[in-house]
Amino acid sequence: VENQRLDGVGSILRALRGAGRLTRQELAQASGMGRSQLLQRLDVLRELGIVEERLTSSSTGGRRPRAASIRPGQGHVLVAALGVTGVTVAAVDLSGRVVDTRQNSLEIALGPDRVLTECVRLLTDLTQANGLGPSWGMGISVPGPVDHQRGMVVSPPVMPGWDQFPIRDWLGDRFGTACWLDNDVNVMAVGEQRYGAGRGHDDFIFVKLGHGIGSGLVMGGVLQRGSRGCAGDIGHLPVMDAPVPCRCGNVGCLEAVAGGMALDAAAERLVLEGASRRLAELTAGRTAGVKDLVRAAELGDTTCLAVLQQAGDRIGAVLAHAVSLLNPSLVILGGGLLAVGDAMFTSMRKSLYGHALPLAARELVLTRTELGNTAAVLGIAEVVLDELFSPAHIESWWHRGAPAGLR
Amino acid sequence: VENQRLDGVGSILRALRGAGRLTRQELAQASGMGRSQLLQRLDVLRELGIVEERLTSSSTGGRRPRAASIRPGQGHVLVAALGVTGVTVAAVDLSGRVVDTRQNSLEIALGPDRVLTECVRLLTDLTQANGLGPSWGMGISVPGPVDHQRGMVVSPPVMPGWDQFPIRDWLGDRFGTACWLDNDVNVMAVGEQRYGAGRGHDDFIFVKLGHGIGSGLVMGGVLQRGSRGCAGDIGHLPVMDAPVPCRCGNVGCLEAVAGGMALDAAAERLVLEGASRRLAELTAGRTAGVKDLVRAAELGDTTCLAVLQQAGDRIGAVLAHAVSLLNPSLVILGGGLLAVGDAMFTSMRKSLYGHALPLAARELVLTRTELGNTAAVLGIAEVVLDELFSPAHIESWWHRGAPAGLR
Repeated sequence: VENQRLDGVGSILRALRGAGRLTRQELAQASGMGRSQLLQRLDVLRELGIVEERLTSSSTGGRRPRAASIRPGQGHVLVAALGVTGVTVAAVDLSGRVVDTRQNSLEIALGPDRVLTECVRLLTDLTQANGLGPSWGMGISVPGPVDHQRGMVVSPPVMPGWDQFPIRDWLGDRFGTACWLDNDVNVMAVGEQRYGAGRGHDDFIFVKLGHGIGSGLVMGGVLQRGSRGCAGDIGHLPVMDAPVPCRCGNVGCLEAVAGGMALDAAAERLVLEGASRRLAELTAGRTAGVKDLVRAAELGDTTCLAVLQQAGDRIGAVLAHAVSLLNPSLVILGGGLLAVGDAMFTSMRKSLYGHALPLAARELVLTRTELGNTAAVLGIAEVVLDELFSPAHIESWWHRGAPAGLR
Repeated sequence: VENQRLDGVGSILRALRGAGRLTRQELAQASGMGRSQLLQRLDVLRELGIVEERLTSSSTGGRRPRAASIRPGQGHVLVAALGVTGVTVAAVDLSGRVVDTRQNSLEIALGPDRVLTECVRLLTDLTQANGLGPSWGMGISVPGPVDHQRGMVVSPPVMPGWDQFPIRDWLGDRFGTACWLDNDVNVMAVGEQRYGAGRGHDDFIFVKLGHGIGSGLVMGGVLQRGSRGCAGDIGHLPVMDAPVPCRCGNVGCLEAVAGGMALDAAAERLVLEGASRRLAELTAGRTAGVKDLVRAAELGDTTCLAVLQQAGDRIGAVLAHAVSLLNPSLVILGGGLLAVGDAMFTSMRKSLYGHALPLAARELVLTRTELGNTAAVLGIAEVVLDELFSPAHIESWWHRGAPAGLR
């Protein structure tokens, strides 16, 4: 098989991952291939044992068309999704389904050696427990700005000790396979695009409201990383009325006044200043946080309610600017801060629709994540599977021999 | 020829338009096609008389490879680029070169009947003067928000009388050919992408500073129009400190405080308020405008200079937000306001680099248009040529018979 005859198998596999099972006609449409090219590519994928074709059951009684699908259990990739305080690892098969998963609390601030060693332990355990062979490839997502070319993070604000550590190569070497590194919000956007709330939308913004605030931009059906990989950094857009210093070095960033860390600090400040008796009673001496703020607001504390509303208002205004500029059909909200109650969400919605340009806001949908914590794992697996079967990569493994999992 | 065997001729033609002449190997790379598919498509394009292949002269003395190019004079498209006060029409051949062009002053506020009739007159004159046959297709760009599906503008602020007028169909019917309608800033971005300052950049923003302020977003190598076609509407992002009402109905829009119309009004206000004697002397009773503001500033009037600097400062700050969110490698400035002197440009540059996130600003290039007034004409022609050879359209004309120009 000439390597150029493999061009396009990536788009066939991507279509099959999304849809599960497709007829040849549907595949031709989804992949944009002519019939002869498609049939030849399907032959290759069948030879490799990745794809199978079966006659479909026909409800109309007419000729039964063949439908292709990815064979289950024929290979897998290993992925790790790092958060600020925890890690999820998973084995995902070539059809995009999670084979098995492990989770653990893990402070990312412990640094690369301890955190990555724990990832290796969890992945090894998972591989052995499921009797899995070598993986076809690996991926890891991290809560920091990623330099794709070098496979490392650059000056990550919430990952002390990780700056320029060779994450991708370190992990790939441990498992003897190709590894990809990506930013957590970007891969969550990809997860929602393929399996979650983003299905059917070519243009959407996924916003993660957590310790910090970040977003992934899907435009024209493609995750847009920008020129240096930092597109979507919505948490450091300025809010109008709050010249608060941000950990990034600037002043007035959204994240510094409305992110989870900012609201934790705001809660503690209210207690220390004696501004909310309810909050002081609720926390009774321990450090107050955003969850206490929400609880106090729900119990009728107007000071705490106002803090949450103002945060929602500011997030909504910044989202409105992004919506006016990008004209997405959808904004998906995710992240831990979203789970803390409705006061903030309500003011966010109001502010978003109030501030966005009428034409951009008219048919805009605001919704919540459908995948929650699994968005990152599914998304990084999609990134790895896309890359594994991309023209550039397929050529390299084809000449060296098939991936480890195929040998 | 089966229509599915035409898939991909669009990407071959696009590559040839950009490069002029490419070997088969270069074409395979640029189009992402395998060898057999490419050769078959080249056969079709030769049969149609669109492409020719010639042996190249080899400087190394080795085997001379064949190189393909688009045959000159084998067909053309007609385009019209409408501005607020003038129109440019052109015939552009299938290789993207302008065959001939006509320009005229024309107030867009005269409304669709008078303006489009003048476009028809100019295009007919140009067609006859050059002995051109029927065109393959047409395109028109306008300074307003375009509804692509319906081929009309929707609530355009500077095009009174045009709201929902069927521009595309009216013009296409006159010439008996397919017609496409697009927004002026979007097509300028495409022009710069293919033939101007945007070449070699996958992610850039083209900003037009004229009567209003608008932008076209190229991300991942593709012009991004957003879900409803209004992506890039940067002129209606808010500035921090200026609650000025905007013609769009909102308050504090960039365009309302730093666009050409706003600066014309600012100049007139300075005269009426007696705030600048120099400006009053320069204009001597006639209405003052932004050009007078610039001249007065150049003559040392600090009040006028401050107005220009503040406008530049505000444009730069809003551009910085777009840069932080999108992480382009390039911002291209165009439009009439750019030609009025350096004071505004200098403060814009300073403000842009000062406000953008360090990672996004680090390798950002700020530059001026390379194409100037021809960007729109070249860009709308590219849009038409892309559409003419897109899989969807090629199928329709293939079955009805070749385009008018081929009969």
